[in-house]
Amino acid sequence: MDLSGRHILASRQALPSNEGFRAKNPKTNEILEPVFSEGGSSEVAYAADQAATDFDAFRAVSPLQRVEFLESIAAELLSCKTALIERCNLETGLPPQRLEGELTRTTNQFKLFAETIKGKTFLNIQIDQGQPERQPLPKPDIRLTHIPLGPVAIFGASNFPLAFSVAGGDTASAFAAGCPVIVKGHPSHPGTSEIAGLAIQKAVEKSGLPKGIFSLIQGSGNQVGEALARHPEIKAVAFTGSHQGGRSLFDIASSRPEPVPVFAEMGSINPVFILPDALANRGEQIAQKYGESITLGVGQFCTKPGLLVAIKGPELDLFIAALINKLKQIEPATMLTLKIQKNFLDKVGHFSVNPEILFSDQSCLAEEQGCQVTPSLFKTDVDSFLAQKNLADEIFGPAAIIVECQSSDEMLALATQLKGQLTATVHADLSEENICKELFFTLEKKAGRLLLNDFPTGVEVCQAMNHGGPYPATTDSRWTSVGTAAMKRFMRPICYQNFDQSLLPEELKD
Amino acid sequence: MDLSGRHILASRQALPSNEGFRAKNPKTNEILEPVFSEGGSSEVAYAADQAATDFDAFRAVSPLQRVEFLESIAAELLSCKTALIERCNLETGLPPQRLEGELTRTTNQFKLFAETIKGKTFLNIQIDQGQPERQPLPKPDIRLTHIPLGPVAIFGASNFPLAFSVAGGDTASAFAAGCPVIVKGHPSHPGTSEIAGLAIQKAVEKSGLPKGIFSLIQGSGNQVGEALARHPEIKAVAFTGSHQGGRSLFDIASSRPEPVPVFAEMGSINPVFILPDALANRGEQIAQKYGESITLGVGQFCTKPGLLVAIKGPELDLFIAALINKLKQIEPATMLTLKIQKNFLDKVGHFSVNPEILFSDQSCLAEEQGCQVTPSLFKTDVDSFLAQKNLADEIFGPAAIIVECQSSDEMLALATQLKGQLTATVHADLSEENICKELFFTLEKKAGRLLLNDFPTGVEVCQAMNHGGPYPATTDSRWTSVGTAAMKRFMRPICYQNFDQSLLPEELKD
Repeated sequence: MDLSGRHILASRQALPSNEGFRAKNPKTNEILEPVFSEGGSSEVAYAADQAATDFDAFRAVSPLQRVEFLESIAAELLSCKTALIERCNLETGLPPQRLEGELTRTTNQFKLFAETIKGKTFLNIQIDQGQPERQPLPKPDIRLTHIPLGPVAIFGASNFPLAFSVAGGDTASAFAAGCPVIVKGHPSHPGTSEIAGLAIQKAVEKSGLPKGIFSLIQGSGNQVGEALARHPEIKAVAFTGSHQGGRSLFDIASSRPEPVPVFAEMGSINPVFILPDALANRGEQIAQKYGESITLGVGQFCTKPGLLVAIKGPELDLFIAALINKLKQIEPATMLTLKIQKNFLDKVGHFSVNPEILFSDQSCLAEEQGCQVTPSLFKTDVDSFLAQKNLADEIFGPAAIIVECQSSDEMLALATQLKGQLTATVHADLSEENICKELFFTLEKKAGRLLLNDFPTGVEVCQAMNHGGPYPATTDSRWTSVGTAAMKRFMRPICYQNFDQSLLPEELKD
Repeated sequence: MDLSGRHILASRQALPSNEGFRAKNPKTNEILEPVFSEGGSSEVAYAADQAATDFDAFRAVSPLQRVEFLESIAAELLSCKTALIERCNLETGLPPQRLEGELTRTTNQFKLFAETIKGKTFLNIQIDQGQPERQPLPKPDIRLTHIPLGPVAIFGASNFPLAFSVAGGDTASAFAAGCPVIVKGHPSHPGTSEIAGLAIQKAVEKSGLPKGIFSLIQGSGNQVGEALARHPEIKAVAFTGSHQGGRSLFDIASSRPEPVPVFAEMGSINPVFILPDALANRGEQIAQKYGESITLGVGQFCTKPGLLVAIKGPELDLFIAALINKLKQIEPATMLTLKIQKNFLDKVGHFSVNPEILFSDQSCLAEEQGCQVTPSLFKTDVDSFLAQKNLADEIFGPAAIIVECQSSDEMLALATQLKGQLTATVHADLSEENICKELFFTLEKKAGRLLLNDFPTGVEVCQAMNHGGPYPATTDSRWTSVGTAAMKRFMRPICYQNFDQSLLPEELKD
């Protein structure tokens, strides 16, 4: 498939720009053609104005037409599957099999949202019938539904180039809510972005929807993102990525003359607690699965459980030995970008005495092998973990820190000191119900998703999923970016008082 | 009832402080005893720490105990009814009959939230059963519920000294959600605040709940509010009042190291559009009701419809004549405070030629009659309204501006230029369905509540109510501060993956 390198503005390919950037193959560090346009405030202004103008036509279409649109995007994505996965593999180094799975997840998200908006539940309708005879005052007829906020700015994430990028869950949920979408493509996979963007463009055309409801602006710097967060026609922002990036967008959007909500999912260290009986009875088995979980996708999942907490002793030593053994079997693997690899190597290379290096060997990696890394494992104690604040920061990549506790009390004390997390996990045996309850009672204040005897790296797309959590995991713990409830971020309530049936929205009529 | 003038910190009366302030009777401008403590950051720190500590015990109590607590607050408020209304009347000038109605609303709010949390609906539970056999990956069992955010800072409003103050809807909804509450009392009615606060304190004691879940901090300046919005243990803020106050709290809370949500309801001009047939057929009748609506509570409602839009012509002239006639019959009435009166007189005194003064006579008011005012009515055209930005700002008090349009197109054009509003109203006859639909299609983007042939000043407390709207009506259009959904502001989703039944929260068990 020939890539143009151009932005997609209001569902049309823009003219080529003077400035540009190119992607790199992280497996070889070779530059990939073509040159992609470098966006700026003029592209943002155009896309935002078109989105605002066509928002009216979009919110006027029937839900059925929106259903068809979402299904059409899924179909268009599948019809360019080969090109999409091929280019994505070149740009991200992620293996084709993983990308096929991710594409299935991506298309399924559109289908799930399509199913969701076939029903009325997502509108959370409330009807209070009038009581004209009520004393001392008549009760008016009031009916509540939910409507879309307006144009949404969405930021593609590097680590899920399909499922959390141009045609990812944020885009699917914003479209499902009835909002126009402007995506800032992630600079590490601009070709993948273009292919996915063209699939959406085709779906817009085939569905006969107004073209302004979709734009994709490419860019390698911060200008596009900042301009989007600042633009008065942008009514909400969704972001998945670094703390710095998410917080910066939040600060811009919050300080606007008209502040708008930003849902930024900014990662997490996803603590895992192993209670003594579980450690004694199933330590080796947990070590196997834990080793898989922290190296899945080269550790580049926001749900990677990067912190493991257990009580010091021979059982933990056996666990660690099994885990190291598991990690030794992990082949060197390619990270998404040179910058991500460098950050990872800097962070793990920084540790030496405390945290103690249990396993780390990046020396085997040759320059010509691109952005490869191998897993790293560290160990420290509770006091050091609490004293060295940086240990509570995410290490993006296949690394984990084990915190050895002296007692279950120390384990609980550590839990109370945690920052906000996407997930928190406990491995426990039935015999340990009391301490387990106590631990979860604390972890409820810390995380958006709690797991028992499971691993957080899979994020099921379903009604009950919550992919969110207290700050700094996200900028607002009241929302999720995965699952059907993700739509709610982009809708608001509105009620109709004393309306004639003929003037009520369809869903509110008797 | 003897007032102590002291703060209530963690459900205990604090020691008297050195600094203090007193309330004034707006009817006479006389100072009212006693001296009330001036709060500061040390009171905030103490109250916030106690709230954070006792949050754990509060979130552990059964929903039934929370129900009893809410009902107990309603009962305690009723048992001090005489003292409450007497003092409130002295401090606010609001007539006893109005205050009795407001107290009924206030106690009913607690009862409604109690009813709401007897059911499970407010938890918005989602259950995705596991499918261990699913290919290619098993589907985990995931169950979602909603939990309280933590300590909430609530700001009493001046204009509803009972229903939007210490024991108002924000407090009721935060307690119902399971959150500890720290109220910053409004300085214009500190005695009313103390009486309501003591009622809550008694309910805390009688319900055997941890004392840290309630504090009332008095203060005449901004220190207490700023310290609350800044305190790391405060997890959400609710405010009803001026734009300046709400935005300032929002800015503080958004720029914290850990930003927290602020729901600030900051008023609105609540536009009313009268379409030609309605004006011709029912102009006089609408004028009567409109005159009542803008002078209700001396125009000190955030839903006061301060902007009226209609088409120029003899029908509008008749409407205006009827409205002026109505306003002439309105007796001078006392505003809540000297500052509010002064602001009102400054704003209405500022107009002379354009907007044209249709009716205004503040000259009859003698100094010794306190904060009395009479209604004012102004008129302008669309171009002037759009050019003079201050005309789109709320005039807090019994005043309204009529905008004369040349055509229904001009009416629609004006609608598209409106800022965010709490409400927007259209008066239309059945014959005017098309233009009415077109108008509402625009107004849907502007307001949180739409009304047809009705008046916005009554805000029914029910499931379908939305008391919110796009900025600057509120800081986040996705929430309401009135009605059962108001609780949602203070709750967040959390899901449990792969949990044994015994470890699940009660509401999520099979």
